[in-house]
Amino acid sequence: MEKEDGIRQFGISRYSDKHIAITSDDVVVEEPLEMVVEYGKIGSRARFTLAITMRTPGNDESLIRGFLLTEGIVETADDIIGCKTHSIDEPSGHQSITAELSPDVVFSTENQQRHFYTSSSCGVCGKTSIDMVRQVTSFRAIPGQPTISSAALHDMSSVMLNAQSLFKKTGGIHAAGLFDVQGNLLVIKEDIGRHNAVDKLIGVAMQKIKLPLNNHILLVSGRAGFELVQKAAVSGIAFFAAVGAPSHLAIELAVESNMTLIGFLKGKGFNIYSAPERIAAT
Amino acid sequence: MEKEDGIRQFGISRYSDKHIAITSDDVVVEEPLEMVVEYGKIGSRARFTLAITMRTPGNDESLIRGFLLTEGIVETADDIIGCKTHSIDEPSGHQSITAELSPDVVFSTENQQRHFYTSSSCGVCGKTSIDMVRQVTSFRAIPGQPTISSAALHDMSSVMLNAQSLFKKTGGIHAAGLFDVQGNLLVIKEDIGRHNAVDKLIGVAMQKIKLPLNNHILLVSGRAGFELVQKAAVSGIAFFAAVGAPSHLAIELAVESNMTLIGFLKGKGFNIYSAPERIAAT
Repeated sequence: MEKEDGIRQFGISRYSDKHIAITSDDVVVEEPLEMVVEYGKIGSRARFTLAITMRTPGNDESLIRGFLLTEGIVETADDIIGCKTHSIDEPSGHQSITAELSPDVVFSTENQQRHFYTSSSCGVCGKTSIDMVRQVTSFRAIPGQPTISSAALHDMSSVMLNAQSLFKKTGGIHAAGLFDVQGNLLVIKEDIGRHNAVDKLIGVAMQKIKLPLNNHILLVSGRAGFELVQKAAVSGIAFFAAVGAPSHLAIELAVESNMTLIGFLKGKGFNIYSAPERIAAT
Repeated sequence: MEKEDGIRQFGISRYSDKHIAITSDDVVVEEPLEMVVEYGKIGSRARFTLAITMRTPGNDESLIRGFLLTEGIVETADDIIGCKTHSIDEPSGHQSITAELSPDVVFSTENQQRHFYTSSSCGVCGKTSIDMVRQVTSFRAIPGQPTISSAALHDMSSVMLNAQSLFKKTGGIHAAGLFDVQGNLLVIKEDIGRHNAVDKLIGVAMQKIKLPLNNHILLVSGRAGFELVQKAAVSGIAFFAAVGAPSHLAIELAVESNMTLIGFLKGKGFNIYSAPERIAAT
């Protein structure tokens, strides 16, 4: 049964207290989205399929915009002229979205091999060189020393949890939230894929907020893996906070990028893994 | 500082109770592993890089064995003659592992495009057709009706949690456990990538336990996404249980595969999303 965007209802059996009862459950939708770019000079435009991602429907345009930025294919919102969505498999609702790159964007299909790296959550990507893992894009340097008070971090995880509408209904979806240094929630996006949640958020931010995001905090509902920290670094994020644990490679990248990496952000306690001088205890 | 396999220690700042203290933290290692196959008839052997995965070091041979099975490249343990590991980037410890396929295994690099699909956790894979998402491999039918008592499921999540040695130290690593229908834990594997944890486990199981795993329960520490259920289906798993939520596509695949899918398995309560007749309330 179809419900709102991103949720489907299933009849299930619920076991508790030694009994099985027939009931229903709200479940997160997971569907493929083909991401395509249209590129080249006027008169010789071409198309290239960048990736297929399993995502929760909704905000597909923000998703491809953020993906193009965090993969280093575009550098500003103006590099994307527009987006077109069409269904390529109507019965199942599978979708394709095309981002039209500005004729000024230099895009080479050969270089795309270099843009893709593998993911620890995925564990399965047809990548053919270990070297590329660190060579995806150049990172934006974080200038100056933005600071945040520990008090601004105190309620951040509960503020985001309260805003996670799909999580409340399904218990099975990641979230990414963008906060200012006063601790105000500016944007929140949810997706079954944690990378997609971050790309959707960055896609909104690059249109509504000036890049780079040097005075912002990105909070993710799960762990801080290498590839999420990389997406944040490309966006110039100064503070990356995770409700869960970081990986060792995420810490090394945060140090390299001069990014403040916070882990286990729950209530009034947290760990600081890099650039701790930006946090003022209050 | 290097500690045991899979863990590295970092100096960190710990904020709690309005104070920042200098301390140390055990963090999960995340490093790339290149997975290669050597294939072909004797006298014309060739090599092909299948994938690079970001994994937690340890059990790399089980990882590639399980990966080859769950991606449909091999069908039995005997299809793999042996494995060779070598470091390709000594200072950083990056590794490459080669699985030697039996000359009898039909392997085509062109077909590999069909074997890779995208992942909802990853969100980024250079795949070029939505159709392939469901066409990775044929599923092993689950014959007969193995049953499990609800009592056998009661303690499963706490039994696995007690066995998650790296999680206890780091708080940041996925686990996959294989149980028999009496609820006994047979194998447990941990990895920063949830797909890798499942592949490591399947890799051990295909060598030590007869495939298909029709009388076994696979329990994962996180959610039940499409691609994990697919790996289980290829292995003939009759019961798939997740501590977290399933996705809608995972449920549809479980129904199609005649697999019993259990979600939110915590303590003595759980949801049954497919084939509930295999669970006997006790």
